[in-house]
Amino acid sequence: MSNIRVGVIGLGVMGASLAQNLASKGLKVNVYNRTPTKTQALLQKGVPNIEGYSDLATFVNDLTGPKIMLLLVKSGRPVDAVIEELRPLLDPADILVDCGNSNWHDTQRRQKAFQGVVNFVGCGVSGGEEGALRGPSLMPGGKDEVVNERLLPILRRIAAKDFNGKPCVTNVGRGPAGHFVKMVHNGIEYAMMQGIAEVYDLLRASGYSNLEMQALFRACNYGNLQSFLMDITVDILGTRDSLGQGFLVDRVSDVAKAKGTGGWTVEAGLRFGVALPNIAAAVIARTQSARNFTFLKNLDLRGKTSPLKKTAQELQTPLYRALELVYLTSYLQGLDLIRQASKELAWEVNLSEVIRIWQGGCIIRSQMLSTLHLFWEEDNSWKQKLLQEARVDLDVLRLLLYKTVTPKPVLHATYDYLQGLFQPTLSSNLIQAQRDYFGAHGYRRVDREGNFTGGWN
Amino acid sequence: MSNIRVGVIGLGVMGASLAQNLASKGLKVNVYNRTPTKTQALLQKGVPNIEGYSDLATFVNDLTGPKIMLLLVKSGRPVDAVIEELRPLLDPADILVDCGNSNWHDTQRRQKAFQGVVNFVGCGVSGGEEGALRGPSLMPGGKDEVVNERLLPILRRIAAKDFNGKPCVTNVGRGPAGHFVKMVHNGIEYAMMQGIAEVYDLLRASGYSNLEMQALFRACNYGNLQSFLMDITVDILGTRDSLGQGFLVDRVSDVAKAKGTGGWTVEAGLRFGVALPNIAAAVIARTQSARNFTFLKNLDLRGKTSPLKKTAQELQTPLYRALELVYLTSYLQGLDLIRQASKELAWEVNLSEVIRIWQGGCIIRSQMLSTLHLFWEEDNSWKQKLLQEARVDLDVLRLLLYKTVTPKPVLHATYDYLQGLFQPTLSSNLIQAQRDYFGAHGYRRVDREGNFTGGWN
Repeated sequence: MSNIRVGVIGLGVMGASLAQNLASKGLKVNVYNRTPTKTQALLQKGVPNIEGYSDLATFVNDLTGPKIMLLLVKSGRPVDAVIEELRPLLDPADILVDCGNSNWHDTQRRQKAFQGVVNFVGCGVSGGEEGALRGPSLMPGGKDEVVNERLLPILRRIAAKDFNGKPCVTNVGRGPAGHFVKMVHNGIEYAMMQGIAEVYDLLRASGYSNLEMQALFRACNYGNLQSFLMDITVDILGTRDSLGQGFLVDRVSDVAKAKGTGGWTVEAGLRFGVALPNIAAAVIARTQSARNFTFLKNLDLRGKTSPLKKTAQELQTPLYRALELVYLTSYLQGLDLIRQASKELAWEVNLSEVIRIWQGGCIIRSQMLSTLHLFWEEDNSWKQKLLQEARVDLDVLRLLLYKTVTPKPVLHATYDYLQGLFQPTLSSNLIQAQRDYFGAHGYRRVDREGNFTGGWN
Repeated sequence: MSNIRVGVIGLGVMGASLAQNLASKGLKVNVYNRTPTKTQALLQKGVPNIEGYSDLATFVNDLTGPKIMLLLVKSGRPVDAVIEELRPLLDPADILVDCGNSNWHDTQRRQKAFQGVVNFVGCGVSGGEEGALRGPSLMPGGKDEVVNERLLPILRRIAAKDFNGKPCVTNVGRGPAGHFVKMVHNGIEYAMMQGIAEVYDLLRASGYSNLEMQALFRACNYGNLQSFLMDITVDILGTRDSLGQGFLVDRVSDVAKAKGTGGWTVEAGLRFGVALPNIAAAVIARTQSARNFTFLKNLDLRGKTSPLKKTAQELQTPLYRALELVYLTSYLQGLDLIRQASKELAWEVNLSEVIRIWQGGCIIRSQMLSTLHLFWEEDNSWKQKLLQEARVDLDVLRLLLYKTVTPKPVLHATYDYLQGLFQPTLSSNLIQAQRDYFGAHGYRRVDREGNFTGGWN
């Protein structure tokens, strides 16, 4: 192991941090960046074990053994550009690991195009700059003899630790499963962030100050909700503006940006027929935040607010429970999507392992992940109890939804998703009737087999 | 005109009905179907002016003048198969009109592939069997000299009539705009149907009988809500089961099917950055109706119901207003998507014309379409008033949402979409703060220009 020289291509925030992480674990690291200034900047930090290159061929030739190269390049065309440049330098025994947020369709395509040229592995990396530097959650996918035997020994050294001290890395599954799982991770992240933002919104509309909200979020940051996103929300709400009076969060524009993975998750939900209402609502909420409705130009639509008339202490339990349901349903939806895609495309994803490697390093880590794998166990007692509690909590949520007038798409989606699970029958019999009425699309009956059509007044 | 022989390829429900419609308007129609049994079945109806063919080449050769062929074949590969077979028989002056529910990307691709071979026109058709036979809403798109000058004179004769007696057909725009507009029509249809189903659901959970619900829907079927979907809901709720006791709708399975256009609309919303919460919620509700959650296997989750304690008379106004808001927001979202796509891809779609041709023949026709074009007019007085009323109605909707425990994703999406319009600021400043905190993605400020990053505790 100590003789291995690992290569890192692309020295943006994530690449530079991963290179330093590898080097700090005693691995020798060759680094390359298209523009040499970034390479220089990294080398100037004086981290031992890092060797810089300005020529790609030399960079590759100086790696030892069957070579392992980690690619940290912007997803899309930049990845294609780099790997085409690499192609003549590669050996079929080498391992090329795309650690960016690539679309899983692209990874599938590249794996096919590079078959026999190199072992092309898609690997999700979560944790942001801090995670990449000190310990990310890593989601590589591929053949056992490539990923398990050769890549994991290295990735285990730089990964975060799960709740039992094991590295947050596993071979998540075949083909492009690594990027698929990371995409879904991000989809879940969108939903959890939007849920927190909606709670923040209803508190803000009720007149709570940033510090009062901070205290409330801090008080809720325990049990299942103890999580990275709650941690940083507490930090953010307490951050004063260095450029002026007051708090920084109040100066941040409310037009939310997105980088694509949330939308890709929604598309995957449509493709695999898995309901992802929380994730879709969160993605759409970011879209709506741009508010470029031409039909509203120059209208004054300022609405009233209807404040919550409760003390922070009275609100703590309801808000805790509401967010607990948001976390639960967001995880369930995302994991259900991974399960279905894995089943259809034979990726052999182990959901328990996915849940385990999300316990540390990544953005969506929370204490809820210590038990969530039990949802896919045969024994029903645990989930029956949990869902019975959820049913009680739904009434709390319902009251909260009613009491304030701010938009709450993810809280509503959470509510509807769970109510949908709890209903013995849904209203879609009327939809099937309508479809048959106007389009002769046919319907099934609840009391006999077969396809039926017509018979309407 | 009377010398023209129009061709119809594909004699399923829609093709056979369109052929009869054309023939009944005095046009001569050549029909062709791959399997001759369907051709025979149509000819046996003895409709004058229809000529059947079992050979595609003869069918094409027997058309007169620059030929017009309407294609009514299942979308996807079947369309490609037929048009490849047609290719050698075509003249660049001919017009080949795909009247199926083709994906607009496919239409774009085929228009490119058939450039110089034939004028390939994408044309949306709505109205189901009845509409195709007696007068559909037709949404062709393409060059003026092809569509306006040669296709419209024929289509005007078979189209439904708008509120002013004009034919429900227009050149909706360039390129694949015809199929795009039809796709969005269907997305809106999903949302309206789901909204009606949710109102049905909360009434049913409150103990209302089918006939009581029928009376309520009938009472609401006026003003803006007077619509085809309300008409058929009234019919459906009154239909008795011919195979047993009770009402047919109660025997229909609640697993809703979908044919793709709803999901395509959601994808288009993601691609063009237009918020379509109603449409997404409706598509996802159909997905969830399959309820194939492996994690729920063998659990008993039957929830309680919380009935509305109001008389039908007390409910009429709240339900009317709730559905009025569903219709309004579903139309606005869909039309906003058409506007944005048209702007980005230079299709030159005239929204007023789209709204006009939806006034008759199609599934989403309603009286609301008599004024909806005013939303895109410069003068704000009308929409300011309408949205002020909507704000008042939102409180009615909020109470309705609170009072019952059935899932109501489209009612909730309607509520949140409008509340989002009415809020001076949204909560996404917190999301931008979180994204910058963990990913250094940067943020904009409300009080000064430029990109900022960092500064968090």
